[in-house]
Amino acid sequence: MKQREDELLESLMAFYTPHNRVIVGPGYDAAVISEMPTLGIVLSIDAQTEGVHFRRSYLSLEEIGHRSLAAALSDLAPMGATPLTYLVNLEIPQDIERKDVLHIYEGFKDLSSEFCISPVGGNVVQGTRISLVTTVVGEIPKDRSILRSQAKPGDLVAVTGDFGKVFAALEIIKRPERFALISADEREKLLEKFRRPKPRIKEMLNMINLVHIHSAIDISDGLGIDLGRIARASDVEIHIRVEDLPISNEVERVAREIDIPPWRLALASGEEFELAFTFSKDEKREIEKSPFPVKVVGVVKEGFVPDVIAETGNGESVSVVDLGYDQILGWKTE
Amino acid sequence: MKQREDELLESLMAFYTPHNRVIVGPGYDAAVISEMPTLGIVLSIDAQTEGVHFRRSYLSLEEIGHRSLAAALSDLAPMGATPLTYLVNLEIPQDIERKDVLHIYEGFKDLSSEFCISPVGGNVVQGTRISLVTTVVGEIPKDRSILRSQAKPGDLVAVTGDFGKVFAALEIIKRPERFALISADEREKLLEKFRRPKPRIKEMLNMINLVHIHSAIDISDGLGIDLGRIARASDVEIHIRVEDLPISNEVERVAREIDIPPWRLALASGEEFELAFTFSKDEKREIEKSPFPVKVVGVVKEGFVPDVIAETGNGESVSVVDLGYDQILGWKTE
Repeated sequence: MKQREDELLESLMAFYTPHNRVIVGPGYDAAVISEMPTLGIVLSIDAQTEGVHFRRSYLSLEEIGHRSLAAALSDLAPMGATPLTYLVNLEIPQDIERKDVLHIYEGFKDLSSEFCISPVGGNVVQGTRISLVTTVVGEIPKDRSILRSQAKPGDLVAVTGDFGKVFAALEIIKRPERFALISADEREKLLEKFRRPKPRIKEMLNMINLVHIHSAIDISDGLGIDLGRIARASDVEIHIRVEDLPISNEVERVAREIDIPPWRLALASGEEFELAFTFSKDEKREIEKSPFPVKVVGVVKEGFVPDVIAETGNGESVSVVDLGYDQILGWKTE
Repeated sequence: MKQREDELLESLMAFYTPHNRVIVGPGYDAAVISEMPTLGIVLSIDAQTEGVHFRRSYLSLEEIGHRSLAAALSDLAPMGATPLTYLVNLEIPQDIERKDVLHIYEGFKDLSSEFCISPVGGNVVQGTRISLVTTVVGEIPKDRSILRSQAKPGDLVAVTGDFGKVFAALEIIKRPERFALISADEREKLLEKFRRPKPRIKEMLNMINLVHIHSAIDISDGLGIDLGRIARASDVEIHIRVEDLPISNEVERVAREIDIPPWRLALASGEEFELAFTFSKDEKREIEKSPFPVKVVGVVKEGFVPDVIAETGNGESVSVVDLGYDQILGWKTE
């Protein structure tokens, strides 16, 4: 195993391209990055585990690699951080051969070249299932920390991209027979976002240049749950107008098939890796200049207790702060 | 699970004590550390996994926590890095209750206070066994990288502490009946190093002030294998005089019981977390001023191929570059 580990790490490090800030690269006990007086190092750790976050039956090894790096990088996005490098711990079961492990590492390539980063550290452990733990390292100007605790009453709430595709993709994967009326093209659009998510790092850096962002978060557990984290950290109430949620036609169709209101599905959909953020309503015009899809979907209000309220349009208001994938499926399958 | 995860992370972060370099602490998407113009950030990732690195039958949850942080911090030691913070991904099986998970976190406390560090990030995943992946972050002066690739022919090879206790402890744990003659006191000395290893960070920083260290490594897989890594990276031959290896009386006794030469057991013992390093023979006097146990055990020579040679005293020379725990046990049990 020891030799196999060393070989595997060498294959991970084979696509290391020296970054001018890296003083000591991979292959040593630790890597060293040159520090800069005006910057701050941003750090986050994340795991993607077989049986918890994915199954091998519906993701290729390359997609598993891609998703694990995407999920980790996504934590840098709401801080407005620029990625610098990453470290990967890979747990592999014995039934995966060496050449197949390489497919997992191949999955890092697209995002690595998109953000001009490469790994500076790795570790391989024999295990019972595939599990990737990724630490991402990024940077921000020292005087600019965007936190989830700075949402202010009166702020607008905006989101990137659209919501619900991941939930819909999982439904199609699990119960394909139920969605015979969804075309191959539509399926592909839904599955693509699930298989190859894109962390919204460039989108955030762009947005920071347009408006003064008060608070931000990336959507890993679902828009309801994650906006709840902003609400708690900032001690505010967040109101979402469900008719303003960006939801694609394919998602609407899947929602109809399983008889869930599309907005509910969109709010509960996890691992979307989109961003939600708040900013002053005076800057509403500015946000419209974004070259990326961004949409205002709600407002921040003072509240007695932190909460996320969906306004469904017919005068109804529902708390959606606990709305996640597991919960909504529980609600549907009982 | 989601709420349980959040609660567990809060309990990990409960022993976060703000460090003056941390701008944004735990509880956000990512942590931020202020950079300094004269320093470099040092990064390493390491895993401790049940069934691979330990079993619950012979380590308490607190010891599992301690060892995982010790193993990760140990990678900072040979670089001469000062620890700054760490991030932990914890995989826990369902049979472990919340209050018991806290014992794992408790295991971080001693090393955290010894090095004045606290975690800035964490993640919890439901799994089938206990597995901790730890990323450690440290710092070094920008112009001082100690690498395993800089050993020079003519250098002396020195080690910290002593060797073989971890191997001996594992033998006692696995076959206690074989060691009836080893007293409770002796057992305790052996098991203590296995259960609560100490990364040699302070020792290394001290040594750097005494001599100019050319190359260094921490002993995770065994002195033979790990010196082999210096030999390969520096393209040299390392010669070890086995009678100079620091081996305690208890280890000698265990070696006798299982009929292995003590030096062989000492060279094969993994997870010792001691350091091996090379420096100019002109500075031999200086190293003797170390307040910590350090011993010269060999020399660096030019060689046709990188190798580690044990000189056993009776004129015999043996390559020990592949000598690890698994290998020596295979050799004994066949």
